[in-house]
Formats: sequence, structure tokens, C-alpha cells
Amino acid sequence: MVAAHSAGVDRNTDRVAVVAASMTQFGERDGWIRDLLAEAGQACLADANATADEIDHLYVSNMASGEFEGQTGVPNALAHDLGAVPAYTARIDQTSSSGGAGIYAAWQSVASGASDCTLLVGGEKMTHRSTAEATDVIASLTHPAEYKHGVTLPSFAGLTARAYLDAYDAPRESLGAVAVKNHENGVDNPNAQFREAVELETVLESPIVADPLRLYDFCPITDGSAALLFVPESLAASYADEYAVVAGVAGATDTHVVHERPDPTTMGAVRDSGNAAFEMADREPADVDVAELHDMFTILELLQFEDLGFAQKGEGWRAAADGRTARDGEIPINTSGGLKSKGHPLGASGVAQAVEVYEQVLGEAGPRQVDADVGLACNVGGFGNCVTTTLLEVAE
Amino acid sequence: MVAAHSAGVDRNTDRVAVVAASMTQFGERDGWIRDLLAEAGQACLADANATADEIDHLYVSNMASGEFEGQTGVPNALAHDLGAVPAYTARIDQTSSSGGAGIYAAWQSVASGASDCTLLVGGEKMTHRSTAEATDVIASLTHPAEYKHGVTLPSFAGLTARAYLDAYDAPRESLGAVAVKNHENGVDNPNAQFREAVELETVLESPIVADPLRLYDFCPITDGSAALLFVPESLAASYADEYAVVAGVAGATDTHVVHERPDPTTMGAVRDSGNAAFEMADREPADVDVAELHDMFTILELLQFEDLGFAQKGEGWRAAADGRTARDGEIPINTSGGLKSKGHPLGASGVAQAVEVYEQVLGEAGPRQVDADVGLACNVGGFGNCVTTTLLEVAE
Repeated sequence: MVAAHSAGVDRNTDRVAVVAASMTQFGERDGWIRDLLAEAGQACLADANATADEIDHLYVSNMASGEFEGQTGVPNALAHDLGAVPAYTARIDQTSSSGGAGIYAAWQSVASGASDCTLLVGGEKMTHRSTAEATDVIASLTHPAEYKHGVTLPSFAGLTARAYLDAYDAPRESLGAVAVKNHENGVDNPNAQFREAVELETVLESPIVADPLRLYDFCPITDGSAALLFVPESLAASYADEYAVVAGVAGATDTHVVHERPDPTTMGAVRDSGNAAFEMADREPADVDVAELHDMFTILELLQFEDLGFAQKGEGWRAAADGRTARDGEIPINTSGGLKSKGHPLGASGVAQAVEVYEQVLGEAGPRQVDADVGLACNVGGFGNCVTTTLLEVAE
Repeated sequence: MVAAHSAGVDRNTDRVAVVAASMTQFGERDGWIRDLLAEAGQACLADANATADEIDHLYVSNMASGEFEGQTGVPNALAHDLGAVPAYTARIDQTSSSGGAGIYAAWQSVASGASDCTLLVGGEKMTHRSTAEATDVIASLTHPAEYKHGVTLPSFAGLTARAYLDAYDAPRESLGAVAVKNHENGVDNPNAQFREAVELETVLESPIVADPLRLYDFCPITDGSAALLFVPESLAASYADEYAVVAGVAGATDTHVVHERPDPTTMGAVRDSGNAAFEMADREPADVDVAELHDMFTILELLQFEDLGFAQKGEGWRAAADGRTARDGEIPINTSGGLKSKGHPLGASGVAQAVEVYEQVLGEAGPRQVDADVGLACNVGGFGNCVTTTLLEVAE
């Protein structure tokens, strides 16, 4: 339906509810971006027993359908495929954090009173291109001077990992522990791209990609899609008996040129978006029961763990190595398997992170379930160039 | 600065103000997309006597920087270039209506209470590519079956023009009158790509592109950028003595497959987004003093004129032919010169439309000034696939 600028909602007090979630199988998929988006979108509507004509805003998180498959205007195609015309549509792109940006846009659409029902679908179709081609598309987000000299995101990850290990006397094994943990979590995620546990030795002996990082420190190239349905909390009961609310959501940027940052082991945009999201939610890191962090590279999980305030700077590696971030640990991180084993279809990843948090706080995570009422998702664009952080809580 | 989720704003009553506007010279420009965006962004900040660190949200309307110049992540680059880091950034893409979608996103950011200061910059760099290449990038927004058969947007325009002329016994000259009027208006716009008046004969004798449409029925390929600054009305006085408010803004989609539409001479998304924007503003077409319509092709100005309610269906051509939409007419349309003479840098166009309306309702349009308190901008994506309509009013 057409957005109605709902007059019945008190925008000062009504919270934004998430009433349904879905994700497709991640991995190498047949079909094109619009097929993947439609699959997740339809599953999300089904999860809420909703029909497409209830949607008034349809946001698509996607970085590069034009570059990957020569198809633009994908939100309009999706509105057609779902039967959501004449709902308003737009594409939200924030490179690899497009999913988190989509969550923020969907939240704004409801919180502003513009929307009574916003469907967000994030997705990317990548595996039909070679790893080199896909890496090149992703690298186009970097500063031209970096790009020209071949400094792609994996290179930054290697340089950062080296700096981190040196600065904090962290063992190489602590990075490997992140990979081992996330692969172990992925075994229980039926939608994950990789569902096999790996040994620490396998990680440590895999081929070097960007020293000191090796193949198993990197997420794969992936196809997939994920979706969330947002409504004003005053309307949530029409869609679900139990639902979550967006307690906090915020975004921030860091320098576009990575080498201008004062400390290579700190991601300022993670810190800033996290602080703002915690402030909005009136929460602090100790309140968080479960979190999905953007482990595109193993080192990134450690940086986010610290920059979000879950550990002191330089101490994050100990949490992973000591099992404190395991599923049965103090603060489970990436119970979904993370980008590492679940896969990283760019525009889908931030949405899929929130899907996992939604299922965890609602107690719907099956064999991956932990004890959680409050969860966090941190979605990193570029090499920390732009970041969004979302806090979801089960509605009481 | 980082978004603060301003607690001091009454989101039920505070309107969204536009306190500054700018556009670059449109035409063939040196430099790349980020240069153009920075130029408009800096000019807009200067117009408000604001500094970049006051911005907490920075939205970029852009369709295809990746396809046109292999550069993505442009919002982050712009945050860097303006000195706006750590402000949140994202790219809003709705193909040729990305600018209107950016206005809607900026409105949402302020109306939701997330932002106290949102800079929107729309832009596109296209002229370094051939017309065929640029048309091909734009055509990638169409349905794959249409694209495969070579039905690009100019083809749709030709077919629609023929249907319109036939259905309503409109003379071919009435389309030419739109081109003549908009070129005449463009003479007084120093930022327009073409500043030469044209004779009706020139239009009617120019080469056929898509029968019955000829070269002068089409907008050019253009480089350019435009910007607007949005704040809560309660903060507007800090930025400007006089300002406009977003009285209404709404978007809608139509079928992705053009031939599925019941009437080829009606654009459903124009009608739906217009109705919703008028309803939000508590206005009707007769209240509008000046409007910028998306005249990518001359026929489109007539369709929007009708579908927004300025004329009965089939009567719009008479308004242009009779001079009622001229600068000194009852309802001046495209005082800026429109896309036709001002140019059409995809992501910039919707923003630039609103820049003209802003200047008109504030009495800052110089030689193009008409008597206006209420103005409308209609930005069309694809061939009416997705449309946003914005109503700006001078604040009293």
C-alpha cells in the first residue's frame, strides 16, 4: 500500500518493533539477486502471516547488483515479485554494511511516522564472479590511492592483524581461535555456507593470504539474502505474539583513508556507533547477552569486541582464546557462525546478523540458543569506514 | 558529529526544515563524482554558515558511480572530503529518482529524531561515457525481458507519446511547446547545461530518436550535483532567517514491467506519491504555486501535470500549448529549465528540482522568480517505476 504517514502513532513514545525475520540458504546459489531477495522477502512475510499489500515501505540493502550482474532498479523488481506495488522502495548502500544501513533506514521510516509496515530485504549475488573479480568490486570502495596500489581489504586486514599481535603480545593462535569458534557455531546453522568444524591446526597451516592472516581467517564469497519486518510497537500484536524492539541503532564513519587513523588497532566508527546505540537504548556492554560481530576477517571480531566495550583495548584476544565468547561462554559472539562460516553476501550480512539476534532474544535459535534478552549486531562497511550498530531486545 | 537521537525534539509536532540549498554548474564537468559532490556539499554548508562538524547524517543520492567510474563507497569519501567524519553516511539509490528518495531519507532522519542536521548531496558523473554507454547503464533498471529486446527508456517514451497524442487528439506541437518553454526558462539559470532558447520549428525538425519524439524532446547526458540541508524546525533559526519546511513527501512504485500497466498514458506512481504528499501537507493541486516536473522526455511533463491533478487526463497538453505553464502563467512548471535544459545528472536531478522550489518559495530565484509560497517537485525513477513527490512551503 501507499505510505499513509500514520497519524495514530505517538512518535515520541512508540518504539519500533521487529515482528518477523528470515534468511535464505547462504552459499553458492542458482538464480539472480532478485530471486534471492524475493525468497527471503516472501519467507519473512510468511513468518508474520502478513501479505505483501500490507507493506508500505520496501527497502533493499545491496551494494553492487549493477557491478555483479548488470542489473539495477532491483527494489522495484522486488516490489513486483512480492506483489508489493505501489509500496515505496529504495536501495540502501553502505558497501559491506548495507544491511545495517538498511536496518537504520527501516527504523527511521517507522520512527518518523512515515511507515506502518516496512519490509527490509538485504542480499547479494556474487559467486558467479571469480574471487578476484568480486574482490575488485569490493575494493572499489577504498580510496583511489589505496586501490591503485593494490591495497584491498584483505591487505588492510593483514597489516592490522600484524599491528595488533605486536602491540598487545597476542599469540597468532588467538586469531585462529575466532575461526575455530565461528565454524563450530556454524555447524548448527542450517543456512550457513560452511557447516564443518575446523581444527586450530587447520587454520594455522592454511595458505597465507595476507600475512599473518591465512585462508581460514577470511570469510568466503557468498550468495544469499535475509529480511526483517518492522512496524510501530503499537501495531506489533497484529503480526506476532512475541516480538523484539529496536532499542538502539546508530551509525558512524571513520576516515576514508585508512592510514590517517591514529591507532590501527582501533575502529573509531565501531566505537562511535556503539556508544550512540548504547546511549539510545540506555544500555551498556554488560547488558548485552549475545552479539553478532562483523568477522569478515578474524582480526575484526577482536577489534569490535574491544571497541564496543566488551573488553579493554588489547584484551579482546584473551576472551576468544579462553572460550568466553563461545556459545556457552559469558558473552557468546557470532552464534550464527558469523560471516566466517555463514558467509558474507555483502548486502545481506548486516540483516542476517540481526536475524540471528532476533531469533536469540525470542528464544527461536534452536540448537544455537543461548540465554538472551538483549542482543547486539555490529555491521562494518569497508575497513571500518562506516559502521552501524543495532541493539535488539525482546519486548516484555 | 555522531547522531545523538535528539531528546529535545517533539517528534509529533516539530516539522522538518530546509535551511540551505546549492547546486553546481550542470553540464560536461571535469573531475569525478566525489569532486562534484564535495563542491555542492561545501556550497550548501556555506549557504547556511554551517561547518561540516555540525552534520550528523550525510546522505548521498547517486545511481551508478560504480558502473560509471568504478568507484563505490562514495558517501564515505564525501564525509572525508567535507570533514564530516564521524557523521553517519549512506547512499540512497532509486535509479533516476535517487534525488527524491534522498529527500525522503533526509526527511525521515530528522522526523524520526535521529538527526539534528542532515546534509543531502545528490550527484552523477556521466559525460565521460558515450551516450550509448550511459543509456545502457540506465537501461539496466528495466525488466530483463524489456532490456533484452532493446526497449530502453527512450523507446518507452516514444511509444507513450504516440499513445497519448492518439488518445487525446493532441497535436505533436504540444510536446514541442514543452521543450521550447523549458529551454526558455533555462536561459536564466546560470547553472543550466543549455542556456539557449529554441524555436518550435527546431524541435519539430530535429532528428527522430523514438518516433514521434525527436532529439529536442530528450534531456541530455549531464554531470552535476546539488545539495540541501535539513534540520528540525525548532533549530532552523540557528541556520537561516528564512527557510522552507517539507510540508509533504511521499513515494510510490508502479509495475516493474511497463506493459502491465492498465493505461499507458497514466503513471500510477506519480498519482499515488502525489496524493500521499498532498494528504500529508493538507494541500491540493490548486495550492501549488510552482512545480518542477521530471521532464526527462517532453511527454513526461504532460503525464505528471495530469497525474498530479493539475489538469484532467488528456488536457495537460493544452496547458503547455496555451502558455499556462510558462513562467508568467497560472502554474509555472520547470522554471529552472527542467531536466530538458538544465540537464539530468541522475542522482542530482531530484535534489536540484527541490533546490529550485526552495529558491522560488524563499524568493531567491533571481530572474526566474515567480510568486510562490508553495512548491512541488516530482522525481521519476525508471519509466514511472518509482516516484517521489515533495511539497516545500516557505515557513511563516
